[in-house]
Amino acid sequence: MRVGVLTGGGDCPGLNAVIRAVVRKGVKEHGFDFVGFRDGWRGPLEGITMPLGIEQCRGILPRGGTILGSSRTNPFAVDDGVQRITDHLADAGVGALVAIGGEDTLGVATRLAELGVNVVGVPKTIDNDLSGTDFTFGFDTAVNIATEAIDRLHTTAESHHRALVVEVMGRHAGWIALHAGIAGGASSVLIPEIPFDIAAVCADVEARFRSEYAPIIVVSEGAVPADGSGMTLQSGEKDAFGHVRLGGIGDRLAHEIEQRTGKEARAVVLGHIQRGGTPSAFDRWLATRFGLQAISAVADGDFGVMVALRGTDIVRVPLAEGTGELKVVSPEEYAEAQVFFG
Amino acid sequence: MRVGVLTGGGDCPGLNAVIRAVVRKGVKEHGFDFVGFRDGWRGPLEGITMPLGIEQCRGILPRGGTILGSSRTNPFAVDDGVQRITDHLADAGVGALVAIGGEDTLGVATRLAELGVNVVGVPKTIDNDLSGTDFTFGFDTAVNIATEAIDRLHTTAESHHRALVVEVMGRHAGWIALHAGIAGGASSVLIPEIPFDIAAVCADVEARFRSEYAPIIVVSEGAVPADGSGMTLQSGEKDAFGHVRLGGIGDRLAHEIEQRTGKEARAVVLGHIQRGGTPSAFDRWLATRFGLQAISAVADGDFGVMVALRGTDIVRVPLAEGTGELKVVSPEEYAEAQVFFG
Amino acid sequence: MRVGVLTGGGDCPGLNAVIRAVVRKGVKEHGFDFVGFRDGWRGPLEGITMPLGIEQCRGILPRGGTILGSSRTNPFAVDDGVQRITDHLADAGVGALVAIGGEDTLGVATRLAELGVNVVGVPKTIDNDLSGTDFTFGFDTAVNIATEAIDRLHTTAESHHRALVVEVMGRHAGWIALHAGIAGGASSVLIPEIPFDIAAVCADVEARFRSEYAPIIVVSEGAVPADGSGMTLQSGEKDAFGHVRLGGIGDRLAHEIEQRTGKEARAVVLGHIQRGGTPSAFDRWLATRFGLQAISAVADGDFGVMVALRGTDIVRVPLAEGTGELKVVSPEEYAEAQVFFG
Amino acid sequence: MRVGVLTGGGDCPGLNAVIRAVVRKGVKEHGFDFVGFRDGWRGPLEGITMPLGIEQCRGILPRGGTILGSSRTNPFAVDDGVQRITDHLADAGVGALVAIGGEDTLGVATRLAELGVNVVGVPKTIDNDLSGTDFTFGFDTAVNIATEAIDRLHTTAESHHRALVVEVMGRHAGWIALHAGIAGGASSVLIPEIPFDIAAVCADVEARFRSEYAPIIVVSEGAVPADGSGMTLQSGEKDAFGHVRLGGIGDRLAHEIEQRTGKEARAVVLGHIQRGGTPSAFDRWLATRFGLQAISAVADGDFGVMVALRGTDIVRVPLAEGTGELKVVSPEEYAEAQVFFG
Repeated sequence: MRVGVLTGGGDCPGLNAVIRAVVRKGVKEHGFDFVGFRDGWRGPLEGITMPLGIEQCRGILPRGGTILGSSRTNPFAVDDGVQRITDHLADAGVGALVAIGGEDTLGVATRLAELGVNVVGVPKTIDNDLSGTDFTFGFDTAVNIATEAIDRLHTTAESHHRALVVEVMGRHAGWIALHAGIAGGASSVLIPEIPFDIAAVCADVEARFRSEYAPIIVVSEGAVPADGSGMTLQSGEKDAFGHVRLGGIGDRLAHEIEQRTGKEARAVVLGHIQRGGTPSAFDRWLATRFGLQAISAVADGDFGVMVALRGTDIVRVPLAEGTGELKVVSPEEYAEAQVFFG
Repeated sequence: MRVGVLTGGGDCPGLNAVIRAVVRKGVKEHGFDFVGFRDGWRGPLEGITMPLGIEQCRGILPRGGTILGSSRTNPFAVDDGVQRITDHLADAGVGALVAIGGEDTLGVATRLAELGVNVVGVPKTIDNDLSGTDFTFGFDTAVNIATEAIDRLHTTAESHHRALVVEVMGRHAGWIALHAGIAGGASSVLIPEIPFDIAAVCADVEARFRSEYAPIIVVSEGAVPADGSGMTLQSGEKDAFGHVRLGGIGDRLAHEIEQRTGKEARAVVLGHIQRGGTPSAFDRWLATRFGLQAISAVADGDFGVMVALRGTDIVRVPLAEGTGELKVVSPEEYAEAQVFFG
Repeated sequence: MRVGVLTGGGDCPGLNAVIRAVVRKGVKEHGFDFVGFRDGWRGPLEGITMPLGIEQCRGILPRGGTILGSSRTNPFAVDDGVQRITDHLADAGVGALVAIGGEDTLGVATRLAELGVNVVGVPKTIDNDLSGTDFTFGFDTAVNIATEAIDRLHTTAESHHRALVVEVMGRHAGWIALHAGIAGGASSVLIPEIPFDIAAVCADVEARFRSEYAPIIVVSEGAVPADGSGMTLQSGEKDAFGHVRLGGIGDRLAHEIEQRTGKEARAVVLGHIQRGGTPSAFDRWLATRFGLQAISAVADGDFGVMVALRGTDIVRVPLAEGTGELKVVSPEEYAEAQVFFG
Repeated sequence: MRVGVLTGGGDCPGLNAVIRAVVRKGVKEHGFDFVGFRDGWRGPLEGITMPLGIEQCRGILPRGGTILGSSRTNPFAVDDGVQRITDHLADAGVGALVAIGGEDTLGVATRLAELGVNVVGVPKTIDNDLSGTDFTFGFDTAVNIATEAIDRLHTTAESHHRALVVEVMGRHAGWIALHAGIAGGASSVLIPEIPFDIAAVCADVEARFRSEYAPIIVVSEGAVPADGSGMTLQSGEKDAFGHVRLGGIGDRLAHEIEQRTGKEARAVVLGHIQRGGTPSAFDRWLATRFGLQAISAVADGDFGVMVALRGTDIVRVPLAEGTGELKVVSPEEYAEAQVFFG
């Protein structure tokens, strides 16, 4: 059988490890051959392929990004998108498809599966916000990078008696902020799930200064102030900056803390360095095991599923179930970390 | 209430994170005060203590080792050991004890609990071989260090057309070798659980050379050749070297591969660099959560338990159960990785 | 003799290594005792001191920041500033002062030396733009951090067919951009010394995309477009963003590249993570040797000098000479790297 | 003109950066074309070549090892070696040769140059012991790796009240040990240039233990005890271990320290991880600039020279001069570090 593989959505350390595991086990244990579809759903939509075999997968395990390229192309937004995909899959002689991606990519996979396409999903989200799995690959790498940045910032903050705000990824879920904030010894962690009280943040800033240590505030890009917080720069006020990227929550928070406490505050926006480069050992192991299980599902004819981590086991769950709900930080999990704030 | 804390056995990245979490939550949420016992069970055995409070725990989160010191002292091997411990605990006014350590340390804790001491255990083993928990802290750091070393060795092996053997920790369980071998793209992984066939290893070495890549063999320190393997240097033959450390399995394997394949082979023994230094973000997060749960158990009066990771939850399990059995790599888990060998 | 030590200006990895070397050699070889002045020139200006001896210097070698604190206080901007400093030095019984800092800090030291204060300078600038020395400590660490970030960004840029702009430190000199750009394989490097031509940058961006690799543009924070470049967002137009930090050259460049080439472009502003945290081995070695030479100068009564690296030697140069001129990237040095652009 | 390139001797981070710079500038500025000779002098000796152009050099900048392969083949030890080399160079149409390597490789280059071959040398030694240049690439990477290892070992040593011996590379010169020992805060540094006194080492070990810190002894693989030192295990006594690798100076020192001080001591032998993997930013910059200067020398017809670092300049020196003498640590440089020992 010929198996197609594609990667969609934002890149994530570990994508290449998944591809390598899928191909290597597919060829060596099941005698499959493979075709790579380029740039997410654009590949099967437009019939853009690349050769994919053990040779193409040599040396890619430690490399970030994806050798298949990626995009955010949504075939359902295109006329006859589904028909064009099934035609191109048939043209390429593809009997099964492994789709590696996040909510959007797997959402498409779910609907294609309902339409009878033989698809197996591999979940990918650097934000770790997919409900069907304990962890997704890429998350551990991002948390390590954010934690190392926080480690570096502590000494600067202390030497200059200055508050530092670190803005990390996480539009809808605060997992990166929470884990990196705990691991880095932050004085506050602000996440999208729980609107923050700027007065409480400033109280923590001042408490930390009294201890002769300096405050580090870790904030998810999607965190928002609580209603009536009185922050000078409100959430969503693009106009004040002319451009959304130019005034993220990190910069706005630093400005507000400076105004309220009279202490210098600076923001660091980690941005893309969280998602590129070589994966951590955990992410390579998880991505590899996801890939092995995905191709086993293909070999078993077990389609319409995605792979997932449960404890230390890799299991299969129905695609619809795995992507149905966003996994967010619960109030209990957030409260657990409170003891380290201030 | 006054709570005692000790750390026993080999050091492990994350010990300080546990201590910090125990103390910080104990003081801030439960109003406990603390006393540190020095150097594992030697502390309560000989009555050696140190002050332990929020001040002592500042800045220790990213630091390897343990501010309490450690030792392998076994109080049961000492006359009146138990009596001396209970006396010293009473002298210090200690109402509960948090014991952080591996099989040996928690084995003592188990027996003390049976004798009525109010003890809560926190599992620690860099080898990840405790049965009661999905993972232990320190393991992820060790795997990352071993993986980075393997990454570095690939280019040397290829440039010199040479086989490289990497000896990692793991006396009874091959978890570090298996995870680092998968993450590092090893050509063979040899573990204590499954005696290895030197001829198969050499076949993998030769297969890897044919692919123009160079072989990296990852071997647990406790791995042994299968009976009748014909390895020139047999397991356990200390005398040949006069000293066990001077002829570990890594060096013996490199020697044997060189003899059998005619290719140059060299060994690298990672040793202590796997267990020292700053913990990975995962280990800081896990250790911190272990510490929080341990002091909650103390506050609940839930003694005779140890904390454990199950999926993403921190739970409590009876001490006797958690330490009763060694968690080893199963044949299925090992077989899963075979597709990458050779 | 009692020797005072202070650190001024922005923090820089290696400050603690200098302090440790000064104190350790001063105590052990010359029998000096020490007093630390807090927060740069504010310390001697206001008479704020801290104990400083071998004990205070234990464990600080690998730590970023400065145990003495820092500030940008300028005593010449304060009434009777010089008099207050000389009074406080006399009160503290200080016979010589080691001042560690950049252009501003050493500028003050130069004038104090002219007024008869026994001062020895240690140059510090993360930007590496002091003319008297081949390299300053902190620079190597910053270049390593920027290079690692660029390494990470390559795979993201390629996977998404996207241009990435990396803004690094360097207000007046492009050393960090040039070194990190060469080390990281950038497609363009833009520095303050040479106003850039946005059309040429975009040509390099397009050339890199044609090679199937993705462009990485490294830009110093102080880089400016050439006159008449036609960049939509001109240098110095603070008003468009309301706040200078919110629209640095990196963001403006990404915006312009996107407009002109029709390719997605994103900016990453490395900011403070370049200057915090543990120093590289080179910086620890250089800072240590600077400290050793500085205290030797004190012991020799050789005041009014600063230490400097020349080849592999640490020499002394007159303070006035060492800080007189900014060391910038020459057109020849910049041209040398051109072969890698595009 | 066609230019040949080869890399000889032990691998070293930065070799690929040299190759890339040579090729890229050669093609783009001088219109040269290139041929790669495989595996050091074996390539031209046996006429083994590989294609070498801008394509082959894409993505190699951050990679350790050498895409050309390496060996220690000595053409002067082979009948008609020189004749065979000049014949193969002529067959391949090669008008000039860039030879990248250490003392041995450049020694061959020197003699070939004397025989009229158009050769330019690029010095390479991870040990930094070539006299013609301030630094060689690869050294900085090795020192960083050794320093990070020492950082990790400190906490283990302290937690267990144990002495740790770290054996680093350096057969004839102690540069890696000296730099990493200074940067890592070692209690002793033992180098080949200065036979060590085991009693003094043990005194430093005991002094460090009294300070509540733990001793780290950094030792070059080529360090030897002074005559009459009374070390139980003398230098050169292979027989005691049956195999030289199995009883290096590190293991012997740890054994001796344990015997003499009664404190636990362990050795870590860093070995090959010092020479593999991605180069530091400094090494990438130095290697790149060496490559640029080497191809300029070819373009200038300036043969029989090697490139060298002097301060921040890359210069050319006669091959004979550059390789004539070993650069070792002087007694003064060693004495400078004494203040940190003990």
